[in-house]
Amino acid sequence: MKIAFTQLVQDLPATVPFIGPETLERAAGSTFKARIGANESAFGISSLAAEAMKSAIDGNGCNWYGDPENFQLREMLAAKHGVAMEEICVDGGIDSLLGLTVRALIEPGQAVVNSLGAYPTFAYHVNGFGGTLHSVPFVNNHEDPASLLAAATQHSAKLLYLSNPDNPMGTSHPAETIQQMIDNLPPGCILLLDEAYTEFAKAGLTPAIDTANRQVIRYRTFSKAYGMAGMRIGYVIANEELICGLNKVRNHFAVNRIAQVGATAALQDAKFLPEIAQKVAAGRQRIYQLADSLGLSYLESSTNFVAVDLGHGDTTRGLLTKLNDNGVFIRMPGVAPLDRFIRVGVGTEQEHRIFSERFTELLSQTTAEPA
Amino acid sequence: MKIAFTQLVQDLPATVPFIGPETLERAAGSTFKARIGANESAFGISSLAAEAMKSAIDGNGCNWYGDPENFQLREMLAAKHGVAMEEICVDGGIDSLLGLTVRALIEPGQAVVNSLGAYPTFAYHVNGFGGTLHSVPFVNNHEDPASLLAAATQHSAKLLYLSNPDNPMGTSHPAETIQQMIDNLPPGCILLLDEAYTEFAKAGLTPAIDTANRQVIRYRTFSKAYGMAGMRIGYVIANEELICGLNKVRNHFAVNRIAQVGATAALQDAKFLPEIAQKVAAGRQRIYQLADSLGLSYLESSTNFVAVDLGHGDTTRGLLTKLNDNGVFIRMPGVAPLDRFIRVGVGTEQEHRIFSERFTELLSQTTAEPA
Repeated sequence: MKIAFTQLVQDLPATVPFIGPETLERAAGSTFKARIGANESAFGISSLAAEAMKSAIDGNGCNWYGDPENFQLREMLAAKHGVAMEEICVDGGIDSLLGLTVRALIEPGQAVVNSLGAYPTFAYHVNGFGGTLHSVPFVNNHEDPASLLAAATQHSAKLLYLSNPDNPMGTSHPAETIQQMIDNLPPGCILLLDEAYTEFAKAGLTPAIDTANRQVIRYRTFSKAYGMAGMRIGYVIANEELICGLNKVRNHFAVNRIAQVGATAALQDAKFLPEIAQKVAAGRQRIYQLADSLGLSYLESSTNFVAVDLGHGDTTRGLLTKLNDNGVFIRMPGVAPLDRFIRVGVGTEQEHRIFSERFTELLSQTTAEPA
Repeated sequence: MKIAFTQLVQDLPATVPFIGPETLERAAGSTFKARIGANESAFGISSLAAEAMKSAIDGNGCNWYGDPENFQLREMLAAKHGVAMEEICVDGGIDSLLGLTVRALIEPGQAVVNSLGAYPTFAYHVNGFGGTLHSVPFVNNHEDPASLLAAATQHSAKLLYLSNPDNPMGTSHPAETIQQMIDNLPPGCILLLDEAYTEFAKAGLTPAIDTANRQVIRYRTFSKAYGMAGMRIGYVIANEELICGLNKVRNHFAVNRIAQVGATAALQDAKFLPEIAQKVAAGRQRIYQLADSLGLSYLESSTNFVAVDLGHGDTTRGLLTKLNDNGVFIRMPGVAPLDRFIRVGVGTEQEHRIFSERFTELLSQTTAEPA
């Protein structure tokens, strides 16, 4: 019997948005000494969150389903962001929320716009639900609002994806630029504003949240600054009507109960985020200094990683493979011209030292090779 | 601006498969004293799993993403079930896997068959992806293979859903009956065999796993006997081609890293499952005895709950509301004629005592009312 998958699934290639570090470790038969490739936090979680989660494991945190309404968490997030609870949808991370958004809004063949080289998992979901993706180039290593808006207009796009700060480049736009973009969205086009890295950025990058506007969905996560990538919990803020649409099709019991406990505890730890932001800022400085010392240019980053310029994609790919083979898990932008950069995650001091030594050594070997 | 959801989502009613106990608690302003309504395990998790998860929280279990291949877990599950790793897909619980299956196989309008009153979350996913559900009645409080097969043939169904043991009735069929059903599936129809409760059942309910057969997908979970409902982790066993289809559209980083750690540890705890099965069997006996003492009949259960016959749906609904109002979280089958039963979950001894007292008292009030 031939299995009758939907036409869409039959036609999809078997792809994965990212290869996990564990896959590379298994292939190499050794463990990475520095894990700085997935923009994970090197600085762990709030001790309040850790204690709360461990207590929950000793209680009924594992054997009871989580609250399908994510009530307590949404209540706290609503207060934090000055919106109504009904304007928040919590789910198992931004990845899941992007998939849910595409599913709720995109019919096969409808147009979606993003930047060429932007977050691959979004493209994976657009393809997975049969949307037609139109990608415009980065301009000067920034996602380009003007090109994105023009493409959205040209293709009558229903969705426009932008991350600010940007992944994979770490660059960002000021709030005014994003607000201007919002104000100029073509009718019927919804902006998916991915703000996964917003807690690392300087003030002034985040336009005011306006849930009266039905054309904007803001994506936030506990995976980055809060250090809870492995716990799978994130949320969107949007107009209630948009949230209702997502609620119609979301998997109501999808969020891990321990993650709910951890996230609510983390929000109560007022000291945690400022400390993390400081550690990440110091980590970026270390990477800047390393690049300076090696005569490499880099992009000022608003995230927990720094894009360092190696001049050419082939150079980056070669060096990346060698780094991976030498105990450093690291990634790079997937497409030209962004692929001239290597994306260096802020690690612990030890991870930075290991990366620094191996990068310096491998780079000297690379440049020493005859042209 | 009117938000242009897909036609499917626009036409969907805003439903939830289940109202969570926390919602009822918030409405009542008090906490349930006995939580026996969601078939959660009252007996917690393996101590090995608890220790491993707490260690992982102190390590990098939270801040690192989980392995998107779920490699170690699939390796252990493959050994446990005597199949290849490539014949297993791990995801965030059976709910998520049912959604993924429907998404991969059902085009809008295509036929799906289940039993009237079977697991509502499956129906939720079928509706959510636009499938057309044809439901056949339970026969003698059992899902009825003959009617299901006849309906699948009549409607040229692509999917047929059956849970064995059954939720919400707790009844089951012997392996031979299920095997006969598998052997008689109409061409092109895939059986979704939900075995969430299989660990509680007597031997002989589980037909041999045959992954050469492309018409069967087996659903298993860590939510029930393993006590990890809150952790969101389950898996399917099926022909590799089916698994490949699911892999094309699944959310690769969806599984919580701590859940991966807990599940792999739980599988190494050889003593745990037999102990749980014994506790659950003892808990069923307590419920049987209570029913006997009250002159109520019940269904022999192969699960961690017992359907107790109250004679009429209105009686059950009335009593259920009173129980919920009196500190006992309990549920019942949603549709007639199954709704003459109340579904009593196996609780801790304390939960059983609380349920027993209140049930006895409320029942006497109910029957004392004039007809």
